[in-house]
Amino acid sequence: MTKNYNVAVLGATGAVGEQMLNTLDRLDFPIASLKLLSSKRSAGKKITFKGEELTVEEAKPESFEGIDLALFSAGGSVSKALASEAVKRGAIVVDNTSAFRMDKDVPLIVPEVNEHALKEHNGIIANPNCSTIQMVAALAPVRERFGLNKLIVSTYQAVSGAGSEAIDEMYDQSRQILDGQEIDPQVLPVSGDKKHYQIAFNAVPQIDVFTDNGFTFEEMKMINETKKIMEDENMSVAATCVRLPVETGHSESVYIEVEKEGLDADKLRRILADAPGITLQDDPSQQLYPLASDSKGKDDIFVGRIRQDLDEKNGFHMWIVADNLLKGAALNSVQIAFSLVKLGLLK
Amino acid sequence: MTKNYNVAVLGATGAVGEQMLNTLDRLDFPIASLKLLSSKRSAGKKITFKGEELTVEEAKPESFEGIDLALFSAGGSVSKALASEAVKRGAIVVDNTSAFRMDKDVPLIVPEVNEHALKEHNGIIANPNCSTIQMVAALAPVRERFGLNKLIVSTYQAVSGAGSEAIDEMYDQSRQILDGQEIDPQVLPVSGDKKHYQIAFNAVPQIDVFTDNGFTFEEMKMINETKKIMEDENMSVAATCVRLPVETGHSESVYIEVEKEGLDADKLRRILADAPGITLQDDPSQQLYPLASDSKGKDDIFVGRIRQDLDEKNGFHMWIVADNLLKGAALNSVQIAFSLVKLGLLK
Repeated sequence: MTKNYNVAVLGATGAVGEQMLNTLDRLDFPIASLKLLSSKRSAGKKITFKGEELTVEEAKPESFEGIDLALFSAGGSVSKALASEAVKRGAIVVDNTSAFRMDKDVPLIVPEVNEHALKEHNGIIANPNCSTIQMVAALAPVRERFGLNKLIVSTYQAVSGAGSEAIDEMYDQSRQILDGQEIDPQVLPVSGDKKHYQIAFNAVPQIDVFTDNGFTFEEMKMINETKKIMEDENMSVAATCVRLPVETGHSESVYIEVEKEGLDADKLRRILADAPGITLQDDPSQQLYPLASDSKGKDDIFVGRIRQDLDEKNGFHMWIVADNLLKGAALNSVQIAFSLVKLGLLK
Repeated sequence: MTKNYNVAVLGATGAVGEQMLNTLDRLDFPIASLKLLSSKRSAGKKITFKGEELTVEEAKPESFEGIDLALFSAGGSVSKALASEAVKRGAIVVDNTSAFRMDKDVPLIVPEVNEHALKEHNGIIANPNCSTIQMVAALAPVRERFGLNKLIVSTYQAVSGAGSEAIDEMYDQSRQILDGQEIDPQVLPVSGDKKHYQIAFNAVPQIDVFTDNGFTFEEMKMINETKKIMEDENMSVAATCVRLPVETGHSESVYIEVEKEGLDADKLRRILADAPGITLQDDPSQQLYPLASDSKGKDDIFVGRIRQDLDEKNGFHMWIVADNLLKGAALNSVQIAFSLVKLGLLK
């Protein structure tokens, strides 16, 4: 007999929260009760889940009484304030913010890559950054067989990663430009940063604020999280993160150098074709390759444009695309919850 | 006393042709007479140059009688048919198509990189591919001092590189999507290829058709042309070329490994700040970095986001942006013409 769990979703009214609810429903997570939580501002909203209308409540420490599993996606400061309160009350928290990702006591999980690390959790489990998840999940099956020495990624990221106001800004700005009107950027590249730039019909090489070494936080997340998830501090990882006028679907141009000899593009394709959660879309003769526009609403990670480097025989190029709100956020969080159940870690 | 030249522009009615005329005017190229040539279809159109109305004529072999300098930008097949006819009649041809770029008897020129190679011309000089020009021009000053072993580029290319029908498709499609209408892609990624995909609010990893090795022609152009211009067959070069919904302005995420020790990000910035034709835009504290939207109509190549790799001390990342119709095409062609004059090669 399957046990059912008391589940809370914090940030239920946001873009990722909405996808979390869809995913819990769609994948039929064993729910005994569902509590929807948000900031005070969004409290009172009604959301229908499996035919039942639920009212969103303001999240407080005592909201987590009796909760087994809490999925957090309401921003880093909310996670910092409430995660330990939830854990104190017996919940396991799966946190989709960057608040705890690099804490050494917090496992950072992509189930198909490092599910085993869940066993060392202390109540909080972190869901990696969207752009990291799709990349490590696509590379893990290759790395397992051939090792991985070096990784260089340039991203083509969708605005939905910056929230619904960024989506609105992109569409409003697009219309203004088409109509020959002036634009007045207010949100992107980073809502809290000093300057804002045109995103419509543009490519902006800044996601999140800058760190002291000239890399952005988004780039450092990709670098540090990849090493943590792959449990290899010596791997060479570099990232350049770029925001595009795409609503949903992150694309990534990835170069890797594997450790062992003997890999070629066909072998790499076969490895990915057999990997769960990955759809190989790679047939140049049919112009078949992953597109952001095709990825929206899909659970899988799409990989194509696989080419052996012309100079470095252990070097390979590929194009990795996924729905940043699903595998990049909500789906991965729910998959972590399923892994917790499977491993008997959710009591 | 400066000599003036009889100049012909073939493809005068196209997007690049228009920029060629603007550039000849703006940089005050010493013109004795100007002849505008095109396909039969566009012949008869009127174009005003320096206050004088000129009629576009259909290009024929005899059109080049008495011409000293012919700038070609009317497609590869037109160049193949007419370049030798122009040369036979005493003209020097600067060809902006891919027709002759890899011919070993044809110099492939970016003046600030390999102007000296003009001396070996046999009548035809090739202008490189737009995405190649801005990259090699930005890297040349670094390479001169520190050598260059390895180069990996991921591009973010504008639709104007695919002609005016691609620009129209991008804007029309954008409006259709904003209005909730169906779209019907007919042009991009490659007008002559079998399948066409959404370009608005998307990122398409195909520019030009595919070659047998899985790289596209655009990618192979960047690889082969870079080696030819830099006169180094042993350099490791790789490219992934992606089309974006940007009208004009190619952006490139470039990773290089230099040969000699001792380069750091500050030194790299100083080298680029001092290089002619390059504008350094690199101040993370002010969110200053190159943007495609700022590059339109500008002659310079813009470089920013310069970072030393965190693992490879000779490795550097940067973001290179330029107007693909100017430095990427028309401006470089006119600069080649000025170099020919300077070197006494244009009689």
